[in-house]
Amino acid sequence: MVVNVAIVGVGLVGSEFIAQVIATQSKKIAVVAVANSRQFLTSPTPLTASWKTDLASPASKAFTLDAFTASLAASKATNPTVVLDCTSNETVAAYYPTWLASGFHVVTPNKKAFSGDLALYKKIKELANGAPGSPMVYHESTVGAGLPVINTLNDLVNTGDKITKIEGIFSGTLSYIFNNFSTLDTSAAPCKFSKVVSVAKDLGYTEPDPRDDLNGMDVARKVIILGRVAGLDLTQETVNVENIVPESLRSLSSEEFMNRLPDFDEHFEKLNKEAIQNGQVLRYVGLVDPVHGKSSVTLARYPASHPFASLKGSDNIIAFTTERFPSPLIIQGAGAGAAVTAFGIYTDILKIAERTQQ
Amino acid sequence: MVVNVAIVGVGLVGSEFIAQVIATQSKKIAVVAVANSRQFLTSPTPLTASWKTDLASPASKAFTLDAFTASLAASKATNPTVVLDCTSNETVAAYYPTWLASGFHVVTPNKKAFSGDLALYKKIKELANGAPGSPMVYHESTVGAGLPVINTLNDLVNTGDKITKIEGIFSGTLSYIFNNFSTLDTSAAPCKFSKVVSVAKDLGYTEPDPRDDLNGMDVARKVIILGRVAGLDLTQETVNVENIVPESLRSLSSEEFMNRLPDFDEHFEKLNKEAIQNGQVLRYVGLVDPVHGKSSVTLARYPASHPFASLKGSDNIIAFTTERFPSPLIIQGAGAGAAVTAFGIYTDILKIAERTQQ
Repeated sequence: MVVNVAIVGVGLVGSEFIAQVIATQSKKIAVVAVANSRQFLTSPTPLTASWKTDLASPASKAFTLDAFTASLAASKATNPTVVLDCTSNETVAAYYPTWLASGFHVVTPNKKAFSGDLALYKKIKELANGAPGSPMVYHESTVGAGLPVINTLNDLVNTGDKITKIEGIFSGTLSYIFNNFSTLDTSAAPCKFSKVVSVAKDLGYTEPDPRDDLNGMDVARKVIILGRVAGLDLTQETVNVENIVPESLRSLSSEEFMNRLPDFDEHFEKLNKEAIQNGQVLRYVGLVDPVHGKSSVTLARYPASHPFASLKGSDNIIAFTTERFPSPLIIQGAGAGAAVTAFGIYTDILKIAERTQQ
Repeated sequence: MVVNVAIVGVGLVGSEFIAQVIATQSKKIAVVAVANSRQFLTSPTPLTASWKTDLASPASKAFTLDAFTASLAASKATNPTVVLDCTSNETVAAYYPTWLASGFHVVTPNKKAFSGDLALYKKIKELANGAPGSPMVYHESTVGAGLPVINTLNDLVNTGDKITKIEGIFSGTLSYIFNNFSTLDTSAAPCKFSKVVSVAKDLGYTEPDPRDDLNGMDVARKVIILGRVAGLDLTQETVNVENIVPESLRSLSSEEFMNRLPDFDEHFEKLNKEAIQNGQVLRYVGLVDPVHGKSSVTLARYPASHPFASLKGSDNIIAFTTERFPSPLIIQGAGAGAAVTAFGIYTDILKIAERTQQ
């Protein structure tokens, strides 16, 4: 029995996921509905490579969450159906309980439902409670894209391991910036902080306004998600975030911010020198520490021999220290990009396919 | 509905698994049978902490694979049943097709079925073919113990990624030996190769005869398993293994071997110096390279900035280079020991519980 997938949000990630499903000629998954913010399309047969044209055609219906959901009811009657949310939209996230209560499964790389309102998160966990026949929710790609982070953490928790620390570099952007800015490799040419940020922006690694990366809010969301999976009731208020955007630059326009950032090169250079003189590098890390009840996002220092120090490019890295893994279980690799994000989504949906096919 | 687990082999790993299930008060898993090479015990209710005494009692039955299997038939009628093979026995491995054909699922850390006779492996894959209602086989703990290695590789393959290289340090023993023997950390006291082997033996890190580690056969088995999961028909004959036991020491007694190993300290020191002078370290690695059709186990060199160079203690590490992960997806951590091996088993059985409970 094929699992039907209905996708809300068909930007880079949603499109890449459809491409992967078509390329693998999956016999387990059929994409039968797609929606953007304006219109949606449902189909009795799996969508083909022409889906973009089909969705843009006048035959598509006007999109509302309610109309889209009603149209899925028919397909759900015969096959398990997954709603795949590929937006980063809060209103869509708030709709998950409606889908789950209607018997749809939910898969998503959207962080909002798992890092926002705690009541929404609890409602989702209550509906997707693991009881036989209950709907399922998977969100591997909310942290580290397709890296097996959430599933590994769930496995540790579900088998009774005690998590003592979760620490990692969860932002590809900030990974790139500090891997290049702060290195013990003496052959690397020294570069100014503002220059690294500007290069990262030009390469498309940052948000349109790099302050949306540098303020730590995206990393904080990932810390909240990991903490909640580990059993802690984290919220934005309980995570201590070190915003590395200099205070006087926070209320400027995006353009003014980039122009004025060089004024602070000396400030960042001083931090970097202090680290390097001690054989350390700067890394922007997220931390969940259930033992000491601390969760934070900080600019921290690591010695050359630490796995965080030798990170390359824009890779993510996460270290789980547990009772069974006192020397931590570490996972690293690309943590952003459409191909690896779609990979994480695909594995999540295959899990649902496996669980609904026995 | 609870998944019944029947365990063959209750040494360190089997006992630890039972302890983890009891400690977590699992509502999904019940251990209902245990067997050692002499006798077995089945129970209509979940076994409790007194299982060792119960198994040793005269009420236990004489163990044969056939008698053990026949006794499981009753429980299977009402609940899904997993046979957990915690031996390293080839005869038990050869029995998997019988169990699978009878509708039992199989979970195991035993490498034999997945790295031995290719016909046996293919028979197992044919029976556990993923079709609805087919029996399931999971063997996460055959490589890297509980590290999420096999499941990650399966996810990559099943979602259509192209594996270009799998490379890793798969032996805790050889990890420990070379992490200590070959390091660029100038503060570490230099030590002779024979001394490191002798310390590793005294710590219980090696097999009783360390040549069983140094000959590379255990690593070769893991290379074969990974290659087969990646779709290659590897056998012992097609993996190129560099046996680092000096030829003249191969036919000696175990004691004579340890006495004569110091004669070769100069040989290993020369290799190490050559590496270190080039800013590299020696590591004993397994490689699967589907692109060039090569699979091997070799003593190779890695530069300081490579993740293999900064490995600590007896940790394992594995790097998957793929089309989607040109900068490899890397997993590292403890790859041996009862607690982490039992963790891998536990996650495998939870997957079967999830897949049989919808």
